[in-house]
Amino acid sequence: MARQDKIRLGAFLRGPGHHLAAWRHPEVPANPGLDFAHYRDAALIAEHGLFDMVFLADSLSARNGEQPIETLERTGHVVHFEPLTLLSALSAVTERVGLVATASTTYWEPFHLARLFASLDHLSGGRAGWNIVTSSDAAAAGNFGREAHPRHADRYARAEEFVDVVLKLWDSWDDEAFIADKASGLAIDRNGIHIPDHVGTHFRVRGPLNVARPIQGHPVMVQAGSSDAGQDLAARTAEVVFTAHATLQSAQAFYADLKARAAGLGRQPESIRIMPGIFPVIGATKTEAEDKFAAIQGLTDPVVGLALLSGLLGDADLSGYDLDGPLPELDQSEAVKSRLKLVSGIARDRKLTIRETYLAIAGARGHYQVVGTPVEIADLLEEWFEGHAADGFNIMPPILPAGLSDFVDTVIPELQRRGLFRTAYEGATLRENLGLERPANRFATKAEAAE
Amino acid sequence: MARQDKIRLGAFLRGPGHHLAAWRHPEVPANPGLDFAHYRDAALIAEHGLFDMVFLADSLSARNGEQPIETLERTGHVVHFEPLTLLSALSAVTERVGLVATASTTYWEPFHLARLFASLDHLSGGRAGWNIVTSSDAAAAGNFGREAHPRHADRYARAEEFVDVVLKLWDSWDDEAFIADKASGLAIDRNGIHIPDHVGTHFRVRGPLNVARPIQGHPVMVQAGSSDAGQDLAARTAEVVFTAHATLQSAQAFYADLKARAAGLGRQPESIRIMPGIFPVIGATKTEAEDKFAAIQGLTDPVVGLALLSGLLGDADLSGYDLDGPLPELDQSEAVKSRLKLVSGIARDRKLTIRETYLAIAGARGHYQVVGTPVEIADLLEEWFEGHAADGFNIMPPILPAGLSDFVDTVIPELQRRGLFRTAYEGATLRENLGLERPANRFATKAEAAE
Repeated sequence: MARQDKIRLGAFLRGPGHHLAAWRHPEVPANPGLDFAHYRDAALIAEHGLFDMVFLADSLSARNGEQPIETLERTGHVVHFEPLTLLSALSAVTERVGLVATASTTYWEPFHLARLFASLDHLSGGRAGWNIVTSSDAAAAGNFGREAHPRHADRYARAEEFVDVVLKLWDSWDDEAFIADKASGLAIDRNGIHIPDHVGTHFRVRGPLNVARPIQGHPVMVQAGSSDAGQDLAARTAEVVFTAHATLQSAQAFYADLKARAAGLGRQPESIRIMPGIFPVIGATKTEAEDKFAAIQGLTDPVVGLALLSGLLGDADLSGYDLDGPLPELDQSEAVKSRLKLVSGIARDRKLTIRETYLAIAGARGHYQVVGTPVEIADLLEEWFEGHAADGFNIMPPILPAGLSDFVDTVIPELQRRGLFRTAYEGATLRENLGLERPANRFATKAEAAE
Repeated sequence: MARQDKIRLGAFLRGPGHHLAAWRHPEVPANPGLDFAHYRDAALIAEHGLFDMVFLADSLSARNGEQPIETLERTGHVVHFEPLTLLSALSAVTERVGLVATASTTYWEPFHLARLFASLDHLSGGRAGWNIVTSSDAAAAGNFGREAHPRHADRYARAEEFVDVVLKLWDSWDDEAFIADKASGLAIDRNGIHIPDHVGTHFRVRGPLNVARPIQGHPVMVQAGSSDAGQDLAARTAEVVFTAHATLQSAQAFYADLKARAAGLGRQPESIRIMPGIFPVIGATKTEAEDKFAAIQGLTDPVVGLALLSGLLGDADLSGYDLDGPLPELDQSEAVKSRLKLVSGIARDRKLTIRETYLAIAGARGHYQVVGTPVEIADLLEEWFEGHAADGFNIMPPILPAGLSDFVDTVIPELQRRGLFRTAYEGATLRENLGLERPANRFATKAEAAE
């Protein structure tokens, strides 16, 4: 029986688009990473297409793992807006689309992040989401006075407590605490004040937050780490999970496993929306799509391609190997366990050379890559959705804004025709559009909880 | 001889307005601190009035010095937007007005703040300013895991290095570093990359920043601390100085002293704009203005008034004293040296009781308070400007948005008639409108510096 719910869609905005060589594409403006009009147009296209959300990745360094100057100077999108400020600006020029920013628990303080996301949620009328990550970029350590980048396990231990502190801070005030009774002079209902006073292993944070409870209760909690520790964190706290899969089978296995983990913790399966990344290259015919793809693949610089591959493999040193020979076996890195496994798997299964491997990920970075007509792409999304590999997808356009317009103009109508996608926004908040419950305040009194 | 330059104006936006009881005023919306439309309207009024900038204060706690529940529940504007996210949203709905946010060097990391302000500067087309403060709010310590709030001298030592790191990060890239040459695949001119690699007493920050050099070179540097250490920091680094003076003489002495300190460091006097705060209560007649003022003074809650006074006196315990007796002599607190001196001075000079003292500061918090007609207010501003007490003013409307509209509709035209204020924006950036030079990149090569 076909699923009764609808596909959820995120528009993953990366200045020039997701392909490594997107910045060199003739249809992409120069230096779009700091061009507000460019992001505004992309966000409006996503909203016009009824996307649930736009999504921004983030990094806390411009060095991509201390890469040599020869790579840096040939790399696009090294500088770009900071996501929370960019989404705040976008909140003023959009009305319905969700606004999801990535922010790292490794180098932020929970009070600052809780406050910034709560502020964005109020600015946007309840459209904020937080993609919770730990920093896998070793260069970030040097920007925050750390001798060495913390280990994977330590980062996840900190992340778990970090999320707990942020959730408590968001619950500092009851929804109705600010009574603002001008006549009596009572501004706040004292029963609605909850001082978190968190004391833990990594953090001591007294609170309360100096922002009222977010409009959504909590901004939507997003998680993208697919390591074991990442999946544990997701099963406990995530409401949306972004994930990378190169095959339907891998996505199905991940989907079943994560929903089971969540169920084991007493959560309803529909309280987590699993959204794999999809890199779509769209053409009116299969040939047109293939030509489009070949054109942008041809713009890929070998120096930059090799650096991307090395980065996804945890800064593996590939300099001693023949580009046209096979990818060597590598140790499990501390940095990016899940992605290493995926990329090595692609290379091994398809018997790819190093060059072929970096070209295989230059667009989608290990996410699913589909090159075809709107009908073929809709077929693929339907197969994954109905096959319980996905509740939705994070769409990664090869170039922006053209790749996103193509999707909105051709694939969305096809999904709508099949009854797989909304024809109008259901709600005013991101949470409402995703069909997620508004969380109760953990500190609420019994009387309120019973209401 | 009359001055040839013009008065500069900031609109100091505080949700309900600056009077302690503003939130109870019938013309002020309920809970404006998290009402984006309210701030948008205020910013548009300021822009319509050709203000140089809107200005937001900040605090990193909601507790105002661990105040008791009896005070907190009667206090307005306890929760509000975080300034950088709010100004980012305002950047999308305004075109010319400057956007200045307060942010503390005590509890932020330089990489985060450098990045947020650089991002705001790019979002706004060069309209960002940073009001550099150290946190005088002891409750903030508890929100960032600190046992105790750092001492005044330590905070300023950290602040000085913090500012140095931020300036270096903003200079990480030459203005023209991002050549984006699609044909050759060269994205960045390698000679335009400057890795700060800062190693100091408080910070070790490698860089480069992952945002391009701000449009203004550096966002405008604002400083508001008036202690000796604060003035030293201002003389070295500030381009705009906000300051509180209860008399013309005090403002003149401060003005002369600060310009001399700056000159002693080799800076041009006009490279610092000194802008005292002014709290204007405007009426068509003197009596109407006085009635307006009396009405809002009458809304002041004694519990909250006393807490404000205690806070401005460095959390002095006044609970044992008669409200209608004199203000006792107090030790110099570590927290807010300059404001304590000012408030104690007001009470002593005017022989005020404790109650009269808190009412004297319930509006302007020690800034200059003027109650009168538009002509009388323009007279006052002209006297301070021509008397070298001020290069401009930070206007603190008693209530928002009405107090700001009144100023724009009545005082601005009077200043323009006298030739004291602009009739159109001079430039596109905040720096251009303030008549401040765009700083050179400290890391620029000789060839570039000679251009």
